[in-house]
Amino acid sequence: MKLESLALAAEIDSSKFNLLLLDQTLLPHEEKWIDIKSNDEMIEAIKSLRVRGAPLIGVAASLMIAKLAHAGVSRDELLVMSQMLFEARPTAVNLMNCVDRMTKVIRDNFNKEKIVDLAVQIFNEDVQLCERMSANGAELLQDGDQILTHCNTGGLATAGVGTALGVIRRAHEHGKKIHVYVDETRPLLQGGRLTSWELKKLGIPFTLITDNMAAHLMSLGKINKAIVGSDRIAVNGDFANKIGTYSVAVNCFYHRIPFYVAAPYTTVDPLCANGSFIPIEQRKREEVKGYGDLQWAPNDIEVYNPSFDVTPHQLVTEWILDKAVYFKKDIEEGVLKSC
Amino acid sequence: MKLESLALAAEIDSSKFNLLLLDQTLLPHEEKWIDIKSNDEMIEAIKSLRVRGAPLIGVAASLMIAKLAHAGVSRDELLVMSQMLFEARPTAVNLMNCVDRMTKVIRDNFNKEKIVDLAVQIFNEDVQLCERMSANGAELLQDGDQILTHCNTGGLATAGVGTALGVIRRAHEHGKKIHVYVDETRPLLQGGRLTSWELKKLGIPFTLITDNMAAHLMSLGKINKAIVGSDRIAVNGDFANKIGTYSVAVNCFYHRIPFYVAAPYTTVDPLCANGSFIPIEQRKREEVKGYGDLQWAPNDIEVYNPSFDVTPHQLVTEWILDKAVYFKKDIEEGVLKSC
Repeated sequence: MKLESLALAAEIDSSKFNLLLLDQTLLPHEEKWIDIKSNDEMIEAIKSLRVRGAPLIGVAASLMIAKLAHAGVSRDELLVMSQMLFEARPTAVNLMNCVDRMTKVIRDNFNKEKIVDLAVQIFNEDVQLCERMSANGAELLQDGDQILTHCNTGGLATAGVGTALGVIRRAHEHGKKIHVYVDETRPLLQGGRLTSWELKKLGIPFTLITDNMAAHLMSLGKINKAIVGSDRIAVNGDFANKIGTYSVAVNCFYHRIPFYVAAPYTTVDPLCANGSFIPIEQRKREEVKGYGDLQWAPNDIEVYNPSFDVTPHQLVTEWILDKAVYFKKDIEEGVLKSC
Repeated sequence: MKLESLALAAEIDSSKFNLLLLDQTLLPHEEKWIDIKSNDEMIEAIKSLRVRGAPLIGVAASLMIAKLAHAGVSRDELLVMSQMLFEARPTAVNLMNCVDRMTKVIRDNFNKEKIVDLAVQIFNEDVQLCERMSANGAELLQDGDQILTHCNTGGLATAGVGTALGVIRRAHEHGKKIHVYVDETRPLLQGGRLTSWELKKLGIPFTLITDNMAAHLMSLGKINKAIVGSDRIAVNGDFANKIGTYSVAVNCFYHRIPFYVAAPYTTVDPLCANGSFIPIEQRKREEVKGYGDLQWAPNDIEVYNPSFDVTPHQLVTEWILDKAVYFKKDIEEGVLKSC
């Protein structure tokens, strides 16, 4: 059996289980696939963002657990390794949700085939979730739309066409004339490096900007919609997403521009009452002081580097999920409690 | 005679006129002074931001004209060269204001000594303007303030202590316990490279952030004031400043945080009725696609790169000028028409 997506591939039969990741830290200039052999390698790949995107890290961790089971790792050891994957990054709940599903099978019915089957199912399910979300969201986009997006939410962030970028892609494929403004998304430049790469490949017209230009474009009337992904949605509709999302939301509110969040139900955390309970990952200061080996700020300075921020539900126009598109009143009625 | 500031130096006597600039494109890692020999070299230094900051490019251009006069350049040739300096960058009105003052003397009373004297006067005047602005502005800052700033507005941007950063510096020197949050200011990173360098030298506590983190910090209550400089202020109080300033202003408005602009009267354009008349410089796309030689975005993509944006007067709490601090009602009464 073969599983293939833009940034993850697996080849599985009774004798082998190859798990490959496209190293996203090297994009767009180098397209290098890495063969993940051990749990430590997968954890390193998740922490260093070689594999990234809330849905995709959930899928990748599930396949990692399946690969370990396939290789004959014992039940107890597998539970320990799963826990290590669970803790690799703290904000995206998809990782926890997927690992929870995997460990339930390990605990309840320790069977190699069943574990592999579930991971394959999680992969395929994510593809389907992207399709449904994109179909739901594409209805909201119109001919002539100029859409701002932040970070990367496409095929590199999921097993399928993506979340926010999936919506944009399907609308484009339906023949709607849209133009995308891509926030470069400092510090790790997922917009400048990854979304630009995807949109160029797809032939969707776009313009790259630095994050601080979006408000200026809004004041000029050049942006009429914004759509982003999410790493965790609380039941009251607050959500965490890549740092800078909140600033986009505030600017949309001020300029009366509709602001959408697109995510599958696996991004909803039914145990999280509101955004204040979402843990925010803090990352190392070199990311803010420069990019990679190029460090342009002085040495020995204080830096703040939260990887995510929380956007309160008041600033969201509609929530695009796989089941449906929700309005504020749906959220208030509690639809996210049973997503 | 010697003129010395953080980023500009001149040594003038009857037999020589040396004009030196600290190459700001190499900061903070390399402190290299360049000896400017010709008008073309000065124009290149202004265009490439080796010398930058609205007040400082006005001062540098004035000294360049004086150096040319000192070297015996003819009246007609000097007028042509002055016009070339006038046009080196379009947004900062200080450049135009200073060159206009210089050309008036060239036209009315062509005398080498008078031309040199005026340039020296413009340098010294800028030092004094910084002092008055900083004294006025420092009154507004209080113990415990956590102040956001954008771009670089200190000793590197003026002949004196600076505009917004001068205010911060004087408040710190008065013993007020303040903490500065420094926007890195993409694409050319004047915050990450230059403001960080200055604040570190001055021993003022600060934290470097990416531009898209400011709103998140505001939502956490970590920023209670914002202060920026300006490249041109219209008589209705609208002003142009480094791209990203408008986003800071909108976020301050949303979070009810006082937002100040600090500038000398030389930044006011009495002929400019409102911000819509301020020309906005567009720069090359490589600046958005990466930084310097490091180009992280794909090749052949569309980019938008305005160097400035306009913040409308409605979003400004107070205007800190050298004469006084002005409120909205002062601006409405027309104080900027006769600044």
